[in-house]
Amino acid sequence: MSEAAARPLSTHYTDVRRATESLIEPLDPEDCALQSMDDASPAKWHLAHTSWYFETFVLEEALPGYRAYHPDYRVLFNSYYNSVGAQFTRGMRGLLTRPHLAEVLAYRAHVDRHMGELLARASQLDPKLCDVILLGLHHEQQHQELLLTDVKHLFSANPLHPAYHKNPTPASHTAPPLQWFAYEGGIREIGHTGAGFAFDNEGPRHAVLVGAFELASRAVTNAEYADFMAAGGYTEPAHWLSDGWSKVNAEGWQAPLYWERDGASTRVMTLSGLESLSPDEPACHLSFYEADAYARWAGARLPTEAEWECAASQQAVEGNFVENGRLHPAPAAAPKNGPDQLYGDVWEWTQSAYAPYPRYRPAKGAIGEYNGKFMSNQLTLRGGSCATPKDHIRPSYRNFFYPDARWQFSGLRLARDL
Amino acid sequence: MSEAAARPLSTHYTDVRRATESLIEPLDPEDCALQSMDDASPAKWHLAHTSWYFETFVLEEALPGYRAYHPDYRVLFNSYYNSVGAQFTRGMRGLLTRPHLAEVLAYRAHVDRHMGELLARASQLDPKLCDVILLGLHHEQQHQELLLTDVKHLFSANPLHPAYHKNPTPASHTAPPLQWFAYEGGIREIGHTGAGFAFDNEGPRHAVLVGAFELASRAVTNAEYADFMAAGGYTEPAHWLSDGWSKVNAEGWQAPLYWERDGASTRVMTLSGLESLSPDEPACHLSFYEADAYARWAGARLPTEAEWECAASQQAVEGNFVENGRLHPAPAAAPKNGPDQLYGDVWEWTQSAYAPYPRYRPAKGAIGEYNGKFMSNQLTLRGGSCATPKDHIRPSYRNFFYPDARWQFSGLRLARDL
Amino acid sequence: MSEAAARPLSTHYTDVRRATESLIEPLDPEDCALQSMDDASPAKWHLAHTSWYFETFVLEEALPGYRAYHPDYRVLFNSYYNSVGAQFTRGMRGLLTRPHLAEVLAYRAHVDRHMGELLARASQLDPKLCDVILLGLHHEQQHQELLLTDVKHLFSANPLHPAYHKNPTPASHTAPPLQWFAYEGGIREIGHTGAGFAFDNEGPRHAVLVGAFELASRAVTNAEYADFMAAGGYTEPAHWLSDGWSKVNAEGWQAPLYWERDGASTRVMTLSGLESLSPDEPACHLSFYEADAYARWAGARLPTEAEWECAASQQAVEGNFVENGRLHPAPAAAPKNGPDQLYGDVWEWTQSAYAPYPRYRPAKGAIGEYNGKFMSNQLTLRGGSCATPKDHIRPSYRNFFYPDARWQFSGLRLARDL
Amino acid sequence: MSEAAARPLSTHYTDVRRATESLIEPLDPEDCALQSMDDASPAKWHLAHTSWYFETFVLEEALPGYRAYHPDYRVLFNSYYNSVGAQFTRGMRGLLTRPHLAEVLAYRAHVDRHMGELLARASQLDPKLCDVILLGLHHEQQHQELLLTDVKHLFSANPLHPAYHKNPTPASHTAPPLQWFAYEGGIREIGHTGAGFAFDNEGPRHAVLVGAFELASRAVTNAEYADFMAAGGYTEPAHWLSDGWSKVNAEGWQAPLYWERDGASTRVMTLSGLESLSPDEPACHLSFYEADAYARWAGARLPTEAEWECAASQQAVEGNFVENGRLHPAPAAAPKNGPDQLYGDVWEWTQSAYAPYPRYRPAKGAIGEYNGKFMSNQLTLRGGSCATPKDHIRPSYRNFFYPDARWQFSGLRLARDL
Repeated sequence: MSEAAARPLSTHYTDVRRATESLIEPLDPEDCALQSMDDASPAKWHLAHTSWYFETFVLEEALPGYRAYHPDYRVLFNSYYNSVGAQFTRGMRGLLTRPHLAEVLAYRAHVDRHMGELLARASQLDPKLCDVILLGLHHEQQHQELLLTDVKHLFSANPLHPAYHKNPTPASHTAPPLQWFAYEGGIREIGHTGAGFAFDNEGPRHAVLVGAFELASRAVTNAEYADFMAAGGYTEPAHWLSDGWSKVNAEGWQAPLYWERDGASTRVMTLSGLESLSPDEPACHLSFYEADAYARWAGARLPTEAEWECAASQQAVEGNFVENGRLHPAPAAAPKNGPDQLYGDVWEWTQSAYAPYPRYRPAKGAIGEYNGKFMSNQLTLRGGSCATPKDHIRPSYRNFFYPDARWQFSGLRLARDL
Repeated sequence: MSEAAARPLSTHYTDVRRATESLIEPLDPEDCALQSMDDASPAKWHLAHTSWYFETFVLEEALPGYRAYHPDYRVLFNSYYNSVGAQFTRGMRGLLTRPHLAEVLAYRAHVDRHMGELLARASQLDPKLCDVILLGLHHEQQHQELLLTDVKHLFSANPLHPAYHKNPTPASHTAPPLQWFAYEGGIREIGHTGAGFAFDNEGPRHAVLVGAFELASRAVTNAEYADFMAAGGYTEPAHWLSDGWSKVNAEGWQAPLYWERDGASTRVMTLSGLESLSPDEPACHLSFYEADAYARWAGARLPTEAEWECAASQQAVEGNFVENGRLHPAPAAAPKNGPDQLYGDVWEWTQSAYAPYPRYRPAKGAIGEYNGKFMSNQLTLRGGSCATPKDHIRPSYRNFFYPDARWQFSGLRLARDL
Repeated sequence: MSEAAARPLSTHYTDVRRATESLIEPLDPEDCALQSMDDASPAKWHLAHTSWYFETFVLEEALPGYRAYHPDYRVLFNSYYNSVGAQFTRGMRGLLTRPHLAEVLAYRAHVDRHMGELLARASQLDPKLCDVILLGLHHEQQHQELLLTDVKHLFSANPLHPAYHKNPTPASHTAPPLQWFAYEGGIREIGHTGAGFAFDNEGPRHAVLVGAFELASRAVTNAEYADFMAAGGYTEPAHWLSDGWSKVNAEGWQAPLYWERDGASTRVMTLSGLESLSPDEPACHLSFYEADAYARWAGARLPTEAEWECAASQQAVEGNFVENGRLHPAPAAAPKNGPDQLYGDVWEWTQSAYAPYPRYRPAKGAIGEYNGKFMSNQLTLRGGSCATPKDHIRPSYRNFFYPDARWQFSGLRLARDL
Repeated sequence: MSEAAARPLSTHYTDVRRATESLIEPLDPEDCALQSMDDASPAKWHLAHTSWYFETFVLEEALPGYRAYHPDYRVLFNSYYNSVGAQFTRGMRGLLTRPHLAEVLAYRAHVDRHMGELLARASQLDPKLCDVILLGLHHEQQHQELLLTDVKHLFSANPLHPAYHKNPTPASHTAPPLQWFAYEGGIREIGHTGAGFAFDNEGPRHAVLVGAFELASRAVTNAEYADFMAAGGYTEPAHWLSDGWSKVNAEGWQAPLYWERDGASTRVMTLSGLESLSPDEPACHLSFYEADAYARWAGARLPTEAEWECAASQQAVEGNFVENGRLHPAPAAAPKNGPDQLYGDVWEWTQSAYAPYPRYRPAKGAIGEYNGKFMSNQLTLRGGSCATPKDHIRPSYRNFFYPDARWQFSGLRLARDL
C-alpha cells in the first residue's frame, strides 16, 4: 500500500488543500483574476471551483444542515456538470472581479471548516462518500497543474514577461545520447490494477495485444527539435498530418509555443520569466501535430498508450515533479534499467485516441460526467510533468488534450516497430 | 479471384469512367457547377478531378510526349496533393463557371483517349503503373459516391426541393424486429488479405484481441431513432459526448439532417425530392455524435471496427448499392445466417478513431498523401451505402469522416458487450 | 422633356427589359448561376428579381386574375422587402441551380406578356401605378450594372481569367494634365428638380450652403494612383482613416482590386479578361478608404456631394456609359467648359455620408423600403460609370456603398477648398 | 473667460489628475485589471494611458534629462498613435496583470512629480506645449468617463451584479410632459468660438443653413421607450434602418442594454448595482439604431448636430454631471426658457455622421491622430452625460460612437421639421 493511500483522509484533504493555496503565494490578486484564453481559467477560479466540488458533491449531500456559502456560486463555479445545472460561460471567467480573491479564500476556509467537521468522523463515513472526497482531492491536484500552466500562458501574453518565481536551480548538465529499449510483443494487461485510487477512465484493466517495439531512452530534446526546425520542419507538408498542416498555416506556427527568436539565439518563456533556451531540456509545449510531425521526420513514431504503459509499469514513479519547485523540464539522466524521464518533466503525447477501455461504464449522476463525456477528438498523454504532483501520477494515468493544445507541459518520446 | 479483378484493366477503366458520366445524366450544366459547402464539391469538379488524377499520375509519368490538356488544370483540379504543387482553394470550387461542363467533358475525353492508347498495351505496362491506374479507378468510385451526396446536399439548400431522379421503386416492406448475433472473443485477424485491390489504409493485415460481443441484426431504423427524439434525445445532455452536445447547441440540431417537420408528419429530402419519412428505413445522415448518443440512450454502444470486420467478413458482399438505382436506404430483410444490411444502405459509424494499423507505412511520393495524412480527428465507418458501387466495397474497407459530418449516407448498428 | 421621358411607357418597358437580356448573351447558364460573395448575386438572380418586382408590385396589384408564376418565387426572389414577407438568404443565392436559366427566362417572358397586357392600356392606368412601373424600370437598370460588376467579380475569382467579351476598342490616348476648376461659394439648390424620373432619395430639392472650392478636371488616373503606391501609400498609416487602416491590414490590401503584379508590370482583370494596366485610365475599383487616403496624400480631399452636384449640373450628361460597349473606364478627354468625365467611366466617391435630405420621407409600404432604410454607414457616389445606362443617370443621382466596397467601378476626383 | 480657463495650468493639472484617481477609490486592484470587451479598457489601463500621454507628448519632448519610467510602457499604454510607434493589442489589455495597480499608481506619481517640475515654471513654457498639456487634461477627462462606463460594462457581465457605489440620492420626481420648442431656420454659425479650450474637431467655426425645426423639451424617458417596446418596437422591421434591423436580429436585442426582465417588472444594471427601472428617467444605453427607430416610430426624427448646437448654445451648461455623484441619469425638470437636460444625463444621438467641418485640418504629428482619423462610420452625440465632468462639456462638443455602441450613457431627444 502506497504512502499516500496510508494517510488518513483528513490529513490527505489538508495536504492537498494547502498545496493548492501555496501555489498562489507568489501571486497578487490581479494575477489571480485574469484569463488569457477559453481553455485557461483564472487562478481564482481554480481555487473556487475545487471548493465548489466539495461543497456540491460532499457537503450538500452529506453534512446535515449545511448551507451553501453563496447561492450564485453553484452556477459561477460549475465547470461542466450539466447534471448540477447551468454553468457560467467558460470564456467569461476572466470577467469576474467579484468575488475578490480574499472572498474566494474565505469560501475555501468555509468549505474546509465544514469538511473538517465531516472528516472528523471519517471512520463512520459511507465508503462511497469517501470515494467522492478522494476523487475531489485528485481533481484538485489536476487543477493545481492547470493553475500553473494557465498562469504561465497568461504571463506569456504580457510583453513584460513576468516571472511566477525565481528559478532556484538552473539545470546545466548535458542530455545523454538517445538509446533504444526493446520490448517483446504479446498479450499484455493495461489499466489500473485496483490498488489505490484511479480515475474511472483508467479501467477496467484489460488485455491488449502489443507488437514488438522499442522505446527511446528519454524525451526528445530542444536541440533535436531545433534540428527538425532547421531542416524545414514547419515548411514541408510531407511531415504533417493534414489537419496539423492546416493548423500550422492558420496559426503561423514556426516553433513550439513560448519560443522567441532573439537575433541568433532563442529565448523561451518559463515560469521564471524569459530564459535562454537550453538545448538539453526536453522539447516542451508541443501540440500533438508537432510531436507527430517530428516523429515522422525522425523516422520513428509516437508510442501507443498500451506500449507506453507496458514500459512505464516496469519503472518506479520518480522524476521531476511539482515538488521539485523547478516548474520546468530538466535534462534526462543517463538511463539505468530502462528509459528515463517516463514520469515527470513533460507529458508525452501518444498516438492513441482518448477512447473508452473495453467495458468502461461511467458512474451514474454528476460524477459520471468527470471523464467519459470527453472521449472524442482528443489524444492521450502519459507520465505527468514538472507541474504534476508526484503522488498524483501512476502508470495507468491517462491525460487527454485536443491535438492542437500547446499550453500544457507536453513533449514526446519516440517509438519504433521491431 | 473476384469478377472485377478478372476484368482486363482497359475494360475496368472504361466501366468506371462511363459509370461516372452516367451519374450526371439527370443533371444540367448549372446543377453541376455549384457548391453548397466547403466539404462538398461541384459535380463538374468531381468529373475533372478524377481525370486530373489519370493525367497527373499516369499520363504525364508514363505516356511519352503527352501534353497536359490545360496548364492551369494542374492547380485547379488538384484536391490536396502537396507534392504535386499548389491547390485551388477548396471552398472556392463553386466559383468556377469555367471550364464549362462541356469543356470538362472534353477534358475527360482527351484523358480517356490517351489512357486508351496506354491501356492498349496493358500487358507491357509496369505493374506499378497498373497499380496507380487501379488506385485511380477506386478513387473515381469514391468520387462517384461523393458526387451523389454533394448533389443531394446542394439540392437540399433549394426551397424548391429539386429531385435528382424519380424514385423508381418505393420500398414498402416492414423492417424485421431487432435481433442480436453473438460473437466469441479471442485473437482475430483484420485488414485486407491481399487478394484483389485495397487501399493502403486497410493494411497491414494484423492480429487484434476482440472481446465477446453481440451485434444487432440490422441498422437502427427511422422509427427507432424517432423514439429517441420523442424521449428528449436532443435536449438531454446526459446522452451526449461533450463535443457532440456543444455541436447540438451551436447548430440547433433537432433531428437528422434532411428531416423536415410538416405539421404532425415528417418529410425528408431525398434524391427523389421531398418524401414522406419511412419508419422502416435505416436512420440516415447522422453524425457520429448522434449515432453515439442514440446507442448510449439505447443501452448499447457502437461497434469497434475490429468487431464490425469480424462479423462482416463472414457475410457475402450483397446489399442495396448504387447499381440498384434506388439511391436511398431500404428496410432490412429478415436476417438469415447473420446480420443483414452490413453492406450497402448506410455507412455504419464505428467507435474507432481512424488511425494507422500497426506497421502501416504510406507510399512514397504524392500517392502516399492518399490516406495516411488524414489519420487524425476522424472516425471510421464501414460497409458502404446505397450510393456506393458494389464492386468498390469489401470487409476491410475503411471510410472515415469527422464526427460532425452528416451529409453522407451514414447511420448506425448497435453492439453490446457479452 | 427628355427623350427618355417622352417614350411611351410600353416602349420604355420593352427597351429596358431587352437591354437586361442582352447583357447575358455572352454568358452560359453556368456563368449565370454562381455567386462569388454575399454582396454579389448570380446573373440569373438579377434576371429573376427584376421580374419579381413587376410581378409583385404591379401584376399582383393591378392585373385582375393574375396568378403568380410560381408560389415559391415570392420568397426566392425577394431581395430585402420585409413588407412583402420572408426573403431567401442573400448569401445562398449561389446555391440555386433551379430554376434553371431557361426557366428564369420563361418567368421573364411570362411577366413580360402580362405586363404587355397591362401596358396596352397605359393611358387608362392609375398614374401611381405608372410610377411604380417606372420605378421598376430604373430599378432594373441598377441591376443591369450590378449584373456586370457581379460577373466581373465572379470571373476574377477564376484563375483562368475568363473574359465576358472581347474588348472592341482599346483606348490608347493619353490622359490630359490635371487642371482645376473653381466654383464660388454661396447658397445653392441641390436635389432633383422634379423634371423626369428620380429616386426618392434625390429629393426634396433644397438649399445648401457651399463654400468656395475647386474641382479637378478629371478622375485620378492609374498612373497617379501608382505614384501614391510607390510612395508607400499602403504602408503609411498617416494617410488613412483609422477604420481604413484596419481594413488595409486585415485584408492585406496593397493595390486596387483586380490589379495583379506580373513581374515588373501590372495587369488588371477586366471584363475582357486580364489586360495590361493602362496608366491613363481612371483608377478604378477603389474603396472609399483608398480614395480618401489618396486624396489626403495628394494634398486634396474628396468633394462633398453638394459640391459635385453644383459642378455636374452645369455639364451635359455625356460620357463613357454602358452603351459604348467598352465596359471599362477610358482616359479623359481634354476639358472644354468644365471638368470632363463627371458622367460615366467611374463612380466618384464623395466625402458625404448617405443620409436623408432635409424633410425626406420614404413612401408608405414596400416601395418605401427602396432607399431610406439604407441611410446609415454608407457613402455617396456620383456620376455613373462605364457600366451605367446613359438614360439612368442625372446630376442629382445618389449611389451609395459601404466604405470598404471595391467591386463597383468606383474611383475618385479631387477637390480643394478655395 | 471661463472659470476653468482662469485656473493656473498647474492647478488645473492637479485637479484633473486627482479627479481620475478619486474614481478608483471604490475599486480594488482586481476590479481595475479586467476588460469586458474590445471597446472597453481596464481601469488600470486608463490610469496608465493618461499618464503615458503626458510622459510621451510633454515630458519626453520638453523636460531635459527626463527618462521614461519604463521602456515597455511606450508600447503598452499607447492607445492608437501610429506616429509614436507600435501599440499593444487593444483587445488584450485585460491580459496584463502587470504592472499591478500599485505600480501604475507609482507611474502616475512619477509623471506627476516631473510634470510638477515643468509646471512650476509654467509662465515660461512654450504656449504650444501648454496647449498639448491642456489637451492632455481634456483627454484625461474623456478617460474618466470611459473608466466609469467600462467598469459598468464589466460589472454587468458578473451575475453577482456588483455595485460601484451606493446610490446616494434616489431620484423620485416625475418627468414633465413633453413639450416642443420651435427654432427658425436660416444661416447659423456652429463650431467652437475660440474662447477657451476645444478639440480640433469642433472647428473651424462656420456657417450652416438650418431649416425651421422644433426640439423636444427633454430626453425620451424609460416609460416612453417602454411604450415603443410594448408596441412591438423590436419586432417590426419597418421602424429600423436596414443595418439596425440586422443588428437587432444578430444580437437578439429586445431592450436597451442593461435592462433585465424580472417577471412583470424590469430591473436595470446601474453603477449602484441592479435597481428597479424608473419610468421617469431618460432612456439610456441605446444604440443609434434604437434611438433612430424610436424616433421614427414616434413620428419624429433625431436632430442634426447643427440643430442641436443652435438650441444648446442658448442654454447654460448645467445639468446632472459626474460631480453630482449620482452617476445615473435623472428625470428632467420642467423646462424654463428652453429645453431642459441638453447637458448632462445622457449623450444625445444626432442623425449627423461624424465628419470633418469645412476646412478642418488635423494638427501635424501624433497629436493630429487625436480626432480626424476617426471621421468615418460613426455618428455624433452631443451634450455630455451623468458621467461627464461639468467643465469638460460645451455647446460645440462633438462626441462620436459607432451606431451599434450601447455601453455609453447614450439616449435621445426628438426633433421635428417645422
